[in-house]
Amino acid sequence: MNVKIKDSQLDKFFNPASVTVIGASSAPFNLGATICTCLREYIKFPGPVFAVNRKGEAVSGCPGYSAVADIPQEVDLAVIITPAAVVPRFVKECGEKGIRNIIIESAGFSEQGTDGTALQSEIDGYARRYGIRLLGPNCLGVLDNMSRFCCFYGAYQEIMDVFDKPGGVSYVIQSGGVGVLIIESLMDDVQGINKMVSIGNKTDVDEADLIEYFSGDNTRVIAMYLENVMHGEKLMNVARRVKKPILVFKSGRTEEGTAAALSHTAGMANNDAVFDCACRQAGIIRLRSISEIYSLPKMLTEMPLLRGNRIAAFTNSGAFGSISADLMVEAGLRMPRLEPATRERLLKIRGVFNVNNPVDIGPAPPQVYLDIFEILFSADEVDGLLLMSSIWRDFVIDVIKEVVKMCKRYDKPAAIYTPNSVGRIISVRKKFNLPLFDTMEEAVRALVVSHEQFRYLQKKETRYGADN
Amino acid sequence: MNVKIKDSQLDKFFNPASVTVIGASSAPFNLGATICTCLREYIKFPGPVFAVNRKGEAVSGCPGYSAVADIPQEVDLAVIITPAAVVPRFVKECGEKGIRNIIIESAGFSEQGTDGTALQSEIDGYARRYGIRLLGPNCLGVLDNMSRFCCFYGAYQEIMDVFDKPGGVSYVIQSGGVGVLIIESLMDDVQGINKMVSIGNKTDVDEADLIEYFSGDNTRVIAMYLENVMHGEKLMNVARRVKKPILVFKSGRTEEGTAAALSHTAGMANNDAVFDCACRQAGIIRLRSISEIYSLPKMLTEMPLLRGNRIAAFTNSGAFGSISADLMVEAGLRMPRLEPATRERLLKIRGVFNVNNPVDIGPAPPQVYLDIFEILFSADEVDGLLLMSSIWRDFVIDVIKEVVKMCKRYDKPAAIYTPNSVGRIISVRKKFNLPLFDTMEEAVRALVVSHEQFRYLQKKETRYGADN
Repeated sequence: MNVKIKDSQLDKFFNPASVTVIGASSAPFNLGATICTCLREYIKFPGPVFAVNRKGEAVSGCPGYSAVADIPQEVDLAVIITPAAVVPRFVKECGEKGIRNIIIESAGFSEQGTDGTALQSEIDGYARRYGIRLLGPNCLGVLDNMSRFCCFYGAYQEIMDVFDKPGGVSYVIQSGGVGVLIIESLMDDVQGINKMVSIGNKTDVDEADLIEYFSGDNTRVIAMYLENVMHGEKLMNVARRVKKPILVFKSGRTEEGTAAALSHTAGMANNDAVFDCACRQAGIIRLRSISEIYSLPKMLTEMPLLRGNRIAAFTNSGAFGSISADLMVEAGLRMPRLEPATRERLLKIRGVFNVNNPVDIGPAPPQVYLDIFEILFSADEVDGLLLMSSIWRDFVIDVIKEVVKMCKRYDKPAAIYTPNSVGRIISVRKKFNLPLFDTMEEAVRALVVSHEQFRYLQKKETRYGADN
Repeated sequence: MNVKIKDSQLDKFFNPASVTVIGASSAPFNLGATICTCLREYIKFPGPVFAVNRKGEAVSGCPGYSAVADIPQEVDLAVIITPAAVVPRFVKECGEKGIRNIIIESAGFSEQGTDGTALQSEIDGYARRYGIRLLGPNCLGVLDNMSRFCCFYGAYQEIMDVFDKPGGVSYVIQSGGVGVLIIESLMDDVQGINKMVSIGNKTDVDEADLIEYFSGDNTRVIAMYLENVMHGEKLMNVARRVKKPILVFKSGRTEEGTAAALSHTAGMANNDAVFDCACRQAGIIRLRSISEIYSLPKMLTEMPLLRGNRIAAFTNSGAFGSISADLMVEAGLRMPRLEPATRERLLKIRGVFNVNNPVDIGPAPPQVYLDIFEILFSADEVDGLLLMSSIWRDFVIDVIKEVVKMCKRYDKPAAIYTPNSVGRIISVRKKFNLPLFDTMEEAVRALVVSHEQFRYLQKKETRYGADN
C-alpha cells in the first residue's frame, strides 16, 4: 500500500473542506446538533456544514437534507451520530455520494455483544467496497488545534479554550472522558495539544495509523490512552520506525480492569507482560498513571533529553534530598558521588550545607543558586538535574527561569519540582510558563522517561539512520 | 515512670505561660529575632517573652538580658538558637534558673560528626541533671493551633494563616521543609493542623513521646515524617496501644536516601523491611509518598472507616472504571460482582450504561446519581465506594455533598475523585469544603489506608479493650 496516498486520505479527518453531520436534528438533547453548534458557532468552521435528518431540517444554521444524496456539494467528511441500527445504511449512502472519510460516533457496536458486532461487520463491508476510511465507531471524533477543527459531540464552550493554546502533543485516546481530562489539565500547563483523536472501537483507523500520520506532521510528542490493542504487530512495526517520543498508558492490566474495558470499547484482553515487553522492543514509553499522559510530555518538549542516568539533586531542605534519593534509586537512576574538583568548586560557595549529592543549601541569595547550578551542569559526572527548591522568595522563580536557559546551553535537562502546595505550583507554572511538576514523583518519572526516549532514539537511529 | 507527670511536662512545649528566646538579638539576619517577632507581632503571645543575648538588648519588643539568671520572672519554656558551641552553657543556665522545657533549634550537633556528638552528649548530661525535657537539637520547634503558639524560626506572615484553620491532624516531622509544605498544602484542603512538632536530632523527646502525648489530646490523626528511628521498641510499644490512626512516611529506604538523611538529622540507618514489618505489627500505617502526609488524613477524619475491602466503583466515563479497577485490584481491594438484587435495582434507573461493577453512566440528571448511590451504599456486598464523576455540570458538586451525608448515614466511606484538572479539583474542594482527592491513585490509597486503620483498630481493641 502506498503510504503517501493513505496519509493524504487521513488528512481529511483533520482538515476537511466540507462536513456533513448525519443524525443532527433540532430534537431536544440531540447530540449531532452539538457538533453543528460547535462547528458553526464555537469554531466558526470556514467550509459548508450540512445536517442530515429525517425531516431534512436545518440545524444551528447548517442546511438540512433527508438523504446524503441530496447534499448539493462534494463532502470531505461525514460524522455519523445516529442509532447504531441505521449506521450501515448511512455508510452506504456516503459511499455512493463519494465521501471517503467517515467518523462514526454512535455507540452500540462490538462493545455491546453479537448484534453490535454484526452491525460493525456490515459497515466494514461498505467501507471496503467504497474505499472509505472509518474512525470509530463509539468514539468522540477529532480535534485539530492547527486547522482549528473539532467534531467532538457534546463539546462545550470551555473546551474551545484549547484553541487558544496550540502545542506539540498529539493524543490518541480510547475514551472521551480521558480526552476532556487532558484538555482541562493542559490548560494549566506549559505544553498544548496539537491533535486529539478518539478512536473508540477502531474498526479501521487505529493507533498505528495515527502514529504513522503524526510522524509526518508537526507533532512533537505522541501520547496514547489505550484500552486494548487489536493489531499488536502493526502497532509495533510502526513504533519501531517513528522517532518522535511515543507514550502510552494502557488500562486492563488486571482481569477486573480488562473486564471493565471490554464493556467500554470492546477489543480483546491483552497479556500485560507481553505488551510491556513489546513496547520496550518497539521503543514505546509506557506510562504508570493516567496523569502522566498530560504531565510528562513537557519534559520532552521543553528540555533536552537525558543522555545518561547520573542525576545531581539540589534542594533547599535536606528532607527532599533524602526522599528524592530513594525515589531516584528505586526508579533506576543513579546519584553519582561528585568528583573532587566539583566538590571543591562547591565548597567555595557560601551557604552550601552539603557538597555531597544531593546538594543542600540553607537560605541563600539567587547568585548562590545560579553558581551551584553552573557547577553541577558543567560537571562531567552529571547528566541531568533534579531541582527541588521551594518558592520561599519570589527570586526562586527567576532562578528557575535561568535554569531553563542553562539546560539548553549545557544540553542537559532539569526536572523541576518546587516543594510547595500543588495550587501554588500550578499558579506559578501558568503565570511564568515554567515546566514545573506537581509532585516529586512526577519529576523523577520525567527524568526516567526522558532517558528512556534517549535510549530508544539511539536504537532507532542505529537501525534506520538519523535522518529517516 | 508516671505517664501523667511526663505528659504535663510536655504540655509546656505547646502551651507555655512564658518564654525566653536565647540567641535572639537585633543583629541583621538573626534567626532568634524572627521567633520574637512571631510571638510578639504575628501571634500576639499573651505571656511575657524575654530575649537573651550578649548585649542584653531588647528584641522586637521583648525585654533583653545578657544571662538567663537575670530574667526577673519564672520561665516555662526556653528556645535556644545560638551557635552550637555555646548551647551546653545555656542549657545549664536554664537548669539553674528552673526552666524544665527547652527547644534547641540550633544545628551543629550529632548530624555534623564527632565534635557535634560530644556537644549533644553534654546537653544531654545537663538535661538529666536538672530534669529538663529537650526538643531538638537541629529542629524548627513547635506550632500549636489550639493554644495559638508557634516558635518556628524564620516563620513568615503567610504561615500564620494556619491559625485561621485549626484541625485534627497532629504532625511529628524531622524536617522543617516538610512542615512548611504541609502547612501550605493543608490551606487548600478540608482538614487542618492541630499541632506540629519538628523533632530534629531528637536527643530526648521523640516521636514515641509525642504519639503518647497526642493520644491524650484532641488530635484525631497522628502523621509523621521520619528520617530515622532511634528507639524502635519504644515507638512500637506506644503505637501498639494508641488507637488514633498513626501515619508515617519514612525516607531512607535506599542506601542513597539513608546517606542523605544522615547528613540532615543524624540518626542511624534502619533496615526498611524490618521497619515495615514492625509498623504492621504495631498498627502504624506506612505512607507511600510524602504528599500522602497531607492528602490522606481527610479520609480518616471526614469519612467512616472502611470495614471490608469490597469496593463499588462509579463513573461517568467508562475509561475511569477500567483504570481504577486495575488500581484497586493491584492495591489489594476487591471489586465484588454486584448481587442480582442490586443489579435489578440498578437496571430500573434510566441512563445506566453498565450495571456491572464499575457502574458506568452517561449524561444524566442529579437524581440518577443519587438513586444509584443509595442502591450501592445499601448493598450488603459493598463496603465502600470509589466515586469518579467529572464535574461536567455544577450539579455534580451538589451530588457530592449528598454523598458525604450518605456515607455517615450508611457508615460506609466514599473516596471521591473528580476527573478534572487538579486546579479545578483544588478550587472546588476549597470553595465547597468537600473531601476530594487530587488523583485517582490518591483516592484508591485513601480506601486502602482507611481499611488498614479499621483492621489495626480491631486488633488494638481486642488486645486492650475498646475504651482504653
